[in-house]
Amino acid sequence: MKISKRSKIPEATITRLSVYSRYLKRLDKQMITTISSSEIAEGVGVSSAQVRKDLAYFGEFGTKGVGYNVNDLIRYLVKILGLNVDWNMLLVGAGNLGAALVTYHEFKDRGFYITGVFDNDVTKIGTKILDMEILSLDKMPDIIKKYNVRIGILAIPPQAAQAVADLFVKNGLEAILNFAPININVPKNIEVRNVDLSIMLETITFSLAGKK
Amino acid sequence: MKISKRSKIPEATITRLSVYSRYLKRLDKQMITTISSSEIAEGVGVSSAQVRKDLAYFGEFGTKGVGYNVNDLIRYLVKILGLNVDWNMLLVGAGNLGAALVTYHEFKDRGFYITGVFDNDVTKIGTKILDMEILSLDKMPDIIKKYNVRIGILAIPPQAAQAVADLFVKNGLEAILNFAPININVPKNIEVRNVDLSIMLETITFSLAGKK
Repeated sequence: MKISKRSKIPEATITRLSVYSRYLKRLDKQMITTISSSEIAEGVGVSSAQVRKDLAYFGEFGTKGVGYNVNDLIRYLVKILGLNVDWNMLLVGAGNLGAALVTYHEFKDRGFYITGVFDNDVTKIGTKILDMEILSLDKMPDIIKKYNVRIGILAIPPQAAQAVADLFVKNGLEAILNFAPININVPKNIEVRNVDLSIMLETITFSLAGKK
Repeated sequence: MKISKRSKIPEATITRLSVYSRYLKRLDKQMITTISSSEIAEGVGVSSAQVRKDLAYFGEFGTKGVGYNVNDLIRYLVKILGLNVDWNMLLVGAGNLGAALVTYHEFKDRGFYITGVFDNDVTKIGTKILDMEILSLDKMPDIIKKYNVRIGILAIPPQAAQAVADLFVKNGLEAILNFAPININVPKNIEVRNVDLSIMLETITFSLAGKK
């Protein structure tokens, strides 16, 4: 079976692979060694055809009539998702959201580490969130170099987002997780994911509005 | 043109409608009155065929060769998304993330109001985030009734998420925005959206892993 080019894989498939890998890790902890696509499907709430289609993008995994080896499949998925290595990130914005991100345990569990926290508020610089000292923005190049950082997180008000995104790009970061509710403009080779909480709520209100 | 059933509309379309509506509101503020699908497309970074397809789910909006009336289109989109009314929400979890959500201005701008903040930590109950007093969970039915709340936000550790989700369902909430990195089980008629930040990062690392 032909393996698809990375750029041709739908984002929704990647999201589901991420969900599958979590579920499989849970099974692995319970000493379950083999699983069928329909069992994965039931466990995560999608159709088994969808599971097979998602995995088929990356070649042939399972054995017909036997299913998937849980351990092998985890190893494949982790590699596909780039999680066979740790990822160092830096965070700009030491407000409530920034503090929530620094203390978000799930990041470390999946191999994501915040290795620098920055703010432009002089009353915050030098103080700490957990054991992370809040740094001024001019320390960014040092941290990027020291920890080989490729991902920047924007947890700042919208009016400051573009300037910091520009700074990320200038300093060689390759990806941005943006919590500011604004579109940032960056070169095409920079990966951007926007976490817009209002938009998520609007998919809810769309559904609720149809009910009453 | 036939208008599609609400349940048949892809979630990705709803998300884009939400993005279009933001963009159009910005144009409206700049006194722009008419716009083509290709201008919307360029403004938000999708193809113009996609814009036309997304809007076509809801009937015929534009005038051929003239484009869309910005004001009319905003009004339609706002109604489709259920944003012609305000939505009261309650929040469980008064930690860093909870505080970030209470202070998230974008919610109010879009008509989302957090009308109750709850925690089970007795050292937090009675204290405030901004002007919101943190309440004990047994006050939930009163707040739901008083503010006609239909949406609950879970900003608590994963191990507590299912119990609070059950409480939401028992108290008649119809939708849950879940920040806990765990799948919650609720009846099928309850709308759930999971905000899993690691999964978003994994769509980034998937792309970066293909680059180096």
